[in-house]
Amino acid sequence: MREQFRQEMHDLTKTLTLEAQAAAKAMKRAAAALKNANLAVAEQVIDSDSRIDLLERHIDDMGISMLARQAPVASDLRTVVSALRLSSILERMGDLARHVAYVARGRYPQTPVEGDVFAILSRMADQAEIVGKKVAELIETHDLRLADAIIDDDDVLDDLHREIFSIVLDPGHDLSRQEIVDAVLLSRYLERYGDHAVSVANRMRFLVTGLEPN
Amino acid sequence: MREQFRQEMHDLTKTLTLEAQAAAKAMKRAAAALKNANLAVAEQVIDSDSRIDLLERHIDDMGISMLARQAPVASDLRTVVSALRLSSILERMGDLARHVAYVARGRYPQTPVEGDVFAILSRMADQAEIVGKKVAELIETHDLRLADAIIDDDDVLDDLHREIFSIVLDPGHDLSRQEIVDAVLLSRYLERYGDHAVSVANRMRFLVTGLEPN
Repeated sequence: MREQFRQEMHDLTKTLTLEAQAAAKAMKRAAAALKNANLAVAEQVIDSDSRIDLLERHIDDMGISMLARQAPVASDLRTVVSALRLSSILERMGDLARHVAYVARGRYPQTPVEGDVFAILSRMADQAEIVGKKVAELIETHDLRLADAIIDDDDVLDDLHREIFSIVLDPGHDLSRQEIVDAVLLSRYLERYGDHAVSVANRMRFLVTGLEPN
Repeated sequence: MREQFRQEMHDLTKTLTLEAQAAAKAMKRAAAALKNANLAVAEQVIDSDSRIDLLERHIDDMGISMLARQAPVASDLRTVVSALRLSSILERMGDLARHVAYVARGRYPQTPVEGDVFAILSRMADQAEIVGKKVAELIETHDLRLADAIIDDDDVLDDLHREIFSIVLDPGHDLSRQEIVDAVLLSRYLERYGDHAVSVANRMRFLVTGLEPN
């Protein structure tokens, strides 16, 4: 029984890592699709999203089954409950990457915007890609220095998000309505991706230390 | 022990209902703040959000404590796990109402937009208010007819969301950049509120029937 439980905990953690890696890869590809107006890569993001959803479902099934059969306590209980929460945050991160890919696909063969707005959105996409990678590493390694780094990275995303708004609202920048709409939505998706990464960081701190996220 | 467990289950469900009612009230007020450019009501939404966050935290603490001490199974386990998930969805719904209130407050004493866009956003806000109310009733009563109604209501929100985009992108409508940005974000917040309501509906169906949400 005990050995089976250990194996199930291992499988749960492994599957969560796979989901995190998939959500990171989705943003890596979405960033590339956005920056290079790459239709094939945008399609890959969109097609791969169902795999992230499946991993989430799988984690939920495993977690609930373990709660029902094994009644874990203390840090094991935290691991299972955390997995149930993290799986849905990661699924949402995958969705946001998909939303970015939709916009990239919709404007192909152009990029959605150009000039300054494109430069900032590209930086946001790069930053989101970095954050996604750190989230996957944090979930795999439990190294809380990554949690701190994710929170700093999110601050950068928030700053860039504000920059997008000040440019978009400045009539000195020549922008079509479609460009304004795309810029606002892309910026929002990327900023939200960072917010979810911060939620992961806080949940992982709770998992590792047992202290409530603030 | 058994009686204490029943009491704790009752408290958990009661607190979840309170959170749902708070998230519904937040959107009711946010809709009023938006439609009537009412600063005081916008401030109420913003100030009340911390109460929703507190209720979420309280539900999480209760749920995890019950899992640790009582090791519930079958429908009791579903209730506890569902509460943990629903609490975070409801918290997010409260956040979205707060985002709507921020925009209303930022444009006071004007409304953020006028004309056709205002008319559609007002309908979306009314619809979101209705959805929020049904979510609270569904959580309180477990009446799955409300789950079906929420899914239909969300379709209406999605249609109105698309209408906003077609108007905003139409150069025939005279709109400032600020109006375009506000319309896109408000429409997105309200549409997302509906999406979360659908998640609640699916989770409640799982809770009541034991069948996985699709």
